[in-house]
Amino acid sequence: MSRRSRGSNTWEVRASTLARNTHNLIRDIVENLQVEPNPEKQLIALSVGDPTTFGNLNPPEQVLQAVRESNEWLSSRSYGPAKGHIEARVAVAQYSAHQGDISPEDVVLCSGCSHAIELAITVIADSGQNVLVPRPGFMIYKTVAEGLGINIKHYNLLPDQQWKIDLEDLENQIDDDTAAIVVINPSNPCGSVYDKGHLYEILDIASRNHVPIIADEIYEHFVFSNNEFTALSALSVDVPILTCGGLTKRFLVPGWRMGWVIIHDRHNIFGKEVRQGLSNLASRILGPNTLIQRALPAILTCTPQSFFDEVVLFIENQAKLAFDELRCAPGLRPIMPQGAMYMMIEIKLSLFPNFKNELQFVERLVAEQSVFCLPGQCFAYPNFMRIVLTVPEAILREACKRMIIFCKDHIVSRETIKEIESDIVTVPSDNEVICDNDTAHVA
Amino acid sequence: MSRRSRGSNTWEVRASTLARNTHNLIRDIVENLQVEPNPEKQLIALSVGDPTTFGNLNPPEQVLQAVRESNEWLSSRSYGPAKGHIEARVAVAQYSAHQGDISPEDVVLCSGCSHAIELAITVIADSGQNVLVPRPGFMIYKTVAEGLGINIKHYNLLPDQQWKIDLEDLENQIDDDTAAIVVINPSNPCGSVYDKGHLYEILDIASRNHVPIIADEIYEHFVFSNNEFTALSALSVDVPILTCGGLTKRFLVPGWRMGWVIIHDRHNIFGKEVRQGLSNLASRILGPNTLIQRALPAILTCTPQSFFDEVVLFIENQAKLAFDELRCAPGLRPIMPQGAMYMMIEIKLSLFPNFKNELQFVERLVAEQSVFCLPGQCFAYPNFMRIVLTVPEAILREACKRMIIFCKDHIVSRETIKEIESDIVTVPSDNEVICDNDTAHVA
Ligand SMILES: Cc1ncc(COP(=O)(O)O)c(C=O)c1O
Ligand SMILES: Cc1ncc(COP(=O)(O)O)c(C=O)c1O
Repeated sequence: MSRRSRGSNTWEVRASTLARNTHNLIRDIVENLQVEPNPEKQLIALSVGDPTTFGNLNPPEQVLQAVRESNEWLSSRSYGPAKGHIEARVAVAQYSAHQGDISPEDVVLCSGCSHAIELAITVIADSGQNVLVPRPGFMIYKTVAEGLGINIKHYNLLPDQQWKIDLEDLENQIDDDTAAIVVINPSNPCGSVYDKGHLYEILDIASRNHVPIIADEIYEHFVFSNNEFTALSALSVDVPILTCGGLTKRFLVPGWRMGWVIIHDRHNIFGKEVRQGLSNLASRILGPNTLIQRALPAILTCTPQSFFDEVVLFIENQAKLAFDELRCAPGLRPIMPQGAMYMMIEIKLSLFPNFKNELQFVERLVAEQSVFCLPGQCFAYPNFMRIVLTVPEAILREACKRMIIFCKDHIVSRETIKEIESDIVTVPSDNEVICDNDTAHVA
Repeated sequence: MSRRSRGSNTWEVRASTLARNTHNLIRDIVENLQVEPNPEKQLIALSVGDPTTFGNLNPPEQVLQAVRESNEWLSSRSYGPAKGHIEARVAVAQYSAHQGDISPEDVVLCSGCSHAIELAITVIADSGQNVLVPRPGFMIYKTVAEGLGINIKHYNLLPDQQWKIDLEDLENQIDDDTAAIVVINPSNPCGSVYDKGHLYEILDIASRNHVPIIADEIYEHFVFSNNEFTALSALSVDVPILTCGGLTKRFLVPGWRMGWVIIHDRHNIFGKEVRQGLSNLASRILGPNTLIQRALPAILTCTPQSFFDEVVLFIENQAKLAFDELRCAPGLRPIMPQGAMYMMIEIKLSLFPNFKNELQFVERLVAEQSVFCLPGQCFAYPNFMRIVLTVPEAILREACKRMIIFCKDHIVSRETIKEIESDIVTVPSDNEVICDNDTAHVA
């Protein structure tokens, strides 16, 4: 494409195709929402996936101390190798031993998990190829891929089976141009945590179809009681996997931008080329901040288990609280998560005749009750909204209260519901508990 | 391109074109060099453009203190906006007032100047277009562009005119597909600093041909006495400019990865599209480390001028030292820099019959004298080598001594020189001072 003729007497400068086709779906949707909160009520943002926003969750003292010390060292200010300092990569390899046998050479440090995902996608997929991502699912994959002409294809998750993957749909999506399957576990936005049986089923599909996996495990270890987290790579026999992770969520330091890609390739299927490709790509911006790199060994080894346990317990309690409250909100169906820090809530739009879609529901909820939830469209999943569970308990409680009022204000009358109900066939999920006073809430 | 057939029973995974075509020239060349130092002499690496390597140059206490404070703040751990925190962008806009009128909206924070360059190139150039870069010149442009199918075309600098741009050559390189001209000033590897007259000449070419400029000013203010640094954007009337800068060199913190792009677009030629494109691209990896972002206002305002002055004076003295020593090295022609932190040295290969090219010269210099200089090929400029001036004085002195010995050991005999000299026509540059005992050095 040529935009300018030498000697032409006009300026004609366009942004590149890459720049024009790079979009952050969440930001695009959120910016186009009419979100003027009710001036009489304090805004409660349940929209931002940042556990540090409200100040109730803080990294442990050991983590801050590690950076204090690192700040005094000369080597924390010098250039590091593009793939990261060896000491930091050794520390990540050890910290990630649950993922399988890892050598420091398998680790590439990145500027946050987003950058890890960017490297994983761009090393493995060419323009014209496609990458399969879950629906609903976090959308950074789209942001990163589409500008480069890499297509995103969705496979479905099943809300009534704790968001397990619709395996048939997954396999049907695979075609000659499929470069990778993305698996997000634990999931944003669903909060699902897959058991070993399901992980084996996923690996089986990847293996039979010879498609590598990108495992987004930024929420690893974020699992509620009676659930267990298993790294996909720990179970893989032949499927080569690029696992993306980082400090962001578990250590409560999203702004620090410290993430990593770990190469799992027991059968040497990625071979030298993908490994070398990752190094090449890392050399574009020369590794993440060395102040944090230098602190990484201490961060990963000195943080006490009790810190992690407390954070997860807090989130689990919040999940229970929100679930218990919202299952009694007329017209809503919260789905109890098993981990991560989010909850998906179905909006039974047929019961809210004022709203054409969940965007309008979310908009009006802000306008009237000053509670902001993320519309499902941000995850390619209409009719749902996502709330964040990391806000302080009292705020979450207040938000639920307001959501219930809002639902009561807008739900159709009891009589209309009766009429509608006889038409609707709802399959109750395991999580869906019948609420004693369900109908009592209906205005 | 399809690499895998669904249901095929083999794995066939390749790295993407982007990954395979991304190369770091310096690393590729350096890794392929035979660089076993002489075990009897301590290695002196004059190769790495990292002023912190030897520990003699350190950031001022104010900078470290700013990070100490930032580390205690909650907001230095939260996600920041993709383009950077507003306070940090305000600080960069004020710090960069010498570049022209800048609003915080014109500033995009990046993970180092390399990332700033990546954004600038990828926002403005499409696959199939080209970007003009100086020869000799820093090669990150090539690393960033070629993987995306953006071509790099070189324009020449003139070693005998203090590395000014060969304007005719520059204009000749412009074609219908030229998306931008890169100007590096002060220059890596040349250490040249362009005066206003020359900057106007460059702007004139860009203006007449309607080509935007990417101004790499990471070495801004690094100028020796009797030279003046002027930002290209400060002189531009119509030419839209993306200026790339950052903390890396001036504040002696390369590992921190804090850089920025500043949009200069008085006539609104970039328009909304390029601006939006930069935002889009920034959202791929979500801004640089917020610990440093939060410290940025203090870093940029509290660092005393005396700190900068001392660093530059030190480098200037080192430049004089190296120049004075090496102009007496038989067969070498150092070119006195006017700024930055490097010196280019011509190797008169006709006088060193042992070496086919400068790579071999540099290799043997390591093997015999344990002094490592960067071969000119790293900057697309054979027959030269680059040394770094930021090493401690005693080390630089020792390195020069060893280089002189090396030259004496390998230069052709005095008789052969005489024969050759009658054939060679050398145009002495302004900088080239006749060395009193020039021939006395010849072995
Ligand atoms: C599933 C998932 N992957 C990756 C990321 C990006 O993490 P980071 O902030 O480290 O770039 C997020 C952030 O919310 C996420 O939810
Ligand atoms: C001319 C030039 N531009 C950009 C850079 C990259 O700077 P950073 O380390 O901030 O990415 C360098 C580093 O040496 C350089 O010399």
